[in-house]
Parts: sequence; C-alpha cells; structure tokens
Amino acid sequence: MYQLFIANKNYSSWSLRPWLLLTELGIAFEEKQVQFLSNDNAAVFKDFAPNAKVPCLHDGGWVVWDSLAIVEYLAERHSGVWPADAKARSWARSASAEMHSGFTGLRSYCPFHAGGRFDKSPLPAAVMQDLKRISELWQQGLDSFGGPYLAGANFSAVDAFYAPVVFRCQTYGLPLSEQAADYARFLLQKPAMQLWYQQALAEPYRETEHEAAALGQGKMLADYRVSG
Amino acid sequence: MYQLFIANKNYSSWSLRPWLLLTELGIAFEEKQVQFLSNDNAAVFKDFAPNAKVPCLHDGGWVVWDSLAIVEYLAERHSGVWPADAKARSWARSASAEMHSGFTGLRSYCPFHAGGRFDKSPLPAAVMQDLKRISELWQQGLDSFGGPYLAGANFSAVDAFYAPVVFRCQTYGLPLSEQAADYARFLLQKPAMQLWYQQALAEPYRETEHEAAALGQGKMLADYRVSG
Ligand SMILES: N[C@@H](CCC(=O)N[C@@H](CS)C(=O)NCC(=O)O)C(=O)O
Ligand SMILES: N[C@@H](CCC(=O)N[C@@H](CS)C(=O)NCC(=O)O)C(=O)O
Repeated sequence: MYQLFIANKNYSSWSLRPWLLLTELGIAFEEKQVQFLSNDNAAVFKDFAPNAKVPCLHDGGWVVWDSLAIVEYLAERHSGVWPADAKARSWARSASAEMHSGFTGLRSYCPFHAGGRFDKSPLPAAVMQDLKRISELWQQGLDSFGGPYLAGANFSAVDAFYAPVVFRCQTYGLPLSEQAADYARFLLQKPAMQLWYQQALAEPYRETEHEAAALGQGKMLADYRVSG
Repeated sequence: MYQLFIANKNYSSWSLRPWLLLTELGIAFEEKQVQFLSNDNAAVFKDFAPNAKVPCLHDGGWVVWDSLAIVEYLAERHSGVWPADAKARSWARSASAEMHSGFTGLRSYCPFHAGGRFDKSPLPAAVMQDLKRISELWQQGLDSFGGPYLAGANFSAVDAFYAPVVFRCQTYGLPLSEQAADYARFLLQKPAMQLWYQQALAEPYRETEHEAAALGQGKMLADYRVSG
C-alpha cells in the first residue's frame, strides 16, 4: 500500500494536494503524519524525503517526492488522475504547473491556515493580481470543459492543486469573481475537503512560525483553538 | 508545426528548457522570440500566453503554457521526452518538479545570464545549500541510472530542466561536487547547448533589470558585449 507523508493539516498546503486526490479517487493509502518544527524540519523530513519536504509518497521501497511528480506517478497507475479528454488534460496540466511554481504573492501573504480566520485587508497589489488571474483561470476551465470541476465533469488533479486556494479564500475572506467563488463553495463542501478541515481543527498543537506568518500585520477574527 | 514562444536567450532560463528538449530530440518547431521589456512584459506576453510568461507552446490553435506542462504535452506525442524505464522516469519527474518550484536561493541570487561572467562570492548560505542539494541529486541520478545523462543513457527532460543550472555554474563559477561538475561540463558541450549559447552571445540588446540583477553587489569579470 502507498504511504503518503504529510505534515500538519492546519498548515501544509502541499500535503493537501495528493491527500485530496488519493481520497477523492478512492485510492487506498496509509497516512504518515509528521509535525512541523519551529527550527529545522529538514533534519527530520530528510529521513523519508530526499528534498526534505512534504508531501512524499512511498510505494514499496520506491520514493516519489514533490506533489506534481506524485500526481504523474499516480496518473501512470490509476485512471481519473487527469481528465480523459486530451484538451482538458493539457489545460489541467498547464493550470496545475502554473500553481506549482506561481502565485507567490498570494502564497506568501496568505499562508495556508485551514482553521483560522484573519482580516489582512487591504490586500497588496500582488495578491489582488494573483486572485484576478485565478478567477480568470478557473472561469476558463469551467467555461471550456462544462464544469462543475475545473476541467470537466469529474474531480481531477487540477482541483486538488487549487484546493489550498479554496481554503485560503475561507481563511482570509479573499475576493474572487462570482463564478470562481461558486466553484470555491462547491469544492469546499466535498466530503474529502470537509474531512481534511475537521482533522485540521482537531490538531492539538500550534507552530509559532506558521501562526505568526498567517496573522502578519492583520487581525485575528476567529480561531479554532479559542472557539473549539 | 509547433510554435515555441521564448524570450531573450541571454536571460530566459525557462525558455531554454523546452527549446533544448525539442532541439535535442529533433522535434521540428518554429521559434518565436519576444524580447523582455523593462517595465511590463505582461501586456505583450498575454497576447500569446494566458499566464503572460514564456515559454508557451502553440500546436495549431491549441495553447500549452508552463515549461513542465509543455514537457508532459510533448511526452504524450513523442518518445524520449522522459526515460522509458519506469523508475528512471519517476525519478526524472521528481527531480524536474523539484527544480520547477524550488532552488529559489540560487535562482534569485544568480539570475540566468548565459553570456556574462560574474564573481558574486562569498555565496550566501541559501545558495550554498541549493548547490549542495543539486550535487547530491545529480549524483543520485548518475549513480542510479548509469549516466552519462541524469536519468540514464539518453538525454531527457530532466537534463533540460537542469540545463540553466549548468549555464549558471559557468556564469558565476559556482562550486559543485566533482561528479556534478563533470556532468555540467558534459552537458555544456552538447551542440544544442552551444547553439543556444552562441545565439545568446549574438543577441544585440540588453535589458537593464536583468543586467542589474545578474551583477548585484558582485564584480563583472567578463562581458560578451565588451569582449565580443
Ligand atoms: N514543490 C514541493 C513543495 C513542498 C513544500 O514546500 N512543502 C513544505 C510544506 S507545505 C515543506 O515541507 N516545508 C518544510 C521545509 O521547507 O522545511 C511540492 O510540490 O511538493
Ligand atoms: N513556471 C513557469 C515560469 C515561466 C517564467 O517565469 N518565465 C519568465 C521568463 S524566464 C517570464 O516570462 N517572465 C516575464 C514576467 O514575469 O513578466 C514555467 O515553468 O514556464
């Protein structure tokens, strides 16, 4: 059985992607959770991942690191990872690769934090530009391939790749176009998304650096540990 | 015929990747070069690429953006893009994805500049750490799959993904392990690498921001426009 190494569900956007894909597609895997440390993750993570990062997939003795490479590894072994239609598949890969290396404005100003609620307005121009591009991209997918998922009728890896953005919109109240916001609501209510969310809320520990980065100069509106 | 949109050969590391892959594999394509502008590339690049970046591949009316998605698009249509062996292919994809989203220390401190020669020592710790990881990764590939390419006997997309690092080592005199430095020399002398290099040297124009970023606080040792 696959083993998927992930970190805190409250903090780890990259872990969410393959976890959600495996869960949505009903591919069996054993979850191996490691916690972020404040000082040096590398020393611990290096034990199971050559890049010293999560996520990392173990398949028997074989190690596959990086979320996008994990997705392609699974795509060679299971149907439904990418859309069956060649154009939808090509689009889904371009959109996923754009996420994989981009949107650094959004990613750095609004770090993944599933459980918190923060007001960090006014949003910097770089974040607004990323959100505009994300709305445009999602709309293009929904219009071109008929929805309700980004690349057509079925959940695929491109939805998994944008799932952390969906959580960020909830956490930080981020503005999207109407059509994009509808998609975000649709994805958020999927059982696998809700399962991740509940498990993130149930995590008993905090990590100082991630908490400070999420709050930034903003205001905490609600907090799962205070309210929960 | 494919059209590949790229920017200046002297500056554009992402453009080099699919260009080198297509050229090495002997896949016919029309090169469409656009120049970087100092202020706003997006306005021009958006005409041919939805993410407003290079590289972008056009196949008839179909648009494939992002270097890694272009590679996967080509892999569905041509043999040799990834290694035929499943383990080598998995490793090559992990290593390429690690490059696609990582090594930001190296990428920001030592921007791609094919023609220049700069001394930016002492190198910051983040750059040294990236170089250490790159040496380790290359050695792992060379040892596991037998060389002389990173994932075995043939050139594949993972060599294309690390080709910009090979040029950076020449430009900035960067330290690698002995085995990694041997690989860098080997790749650099490939005809397609030399063709890109000569075409970069022959480019008659400069772009202020890229020049300033390459020099940084360092010293210019040689310059293709002065010496050429
Ligand atoms: N490109 C990688 C990014 C992975 C990544 O940055 N993971 C973070 C957690 S979300 C991590 O492990 N950070 C630990 C560290 O950098 O020390 C992927 O797609 O898997
Ligand atoms: N993740 C993209 C990165 C592409 C990229 O950043 N390209 C740079 C040139 S090397 C670019 O077009 N920059 C123009 C801009 O950002 O305005 C890929 O892999 O293709």
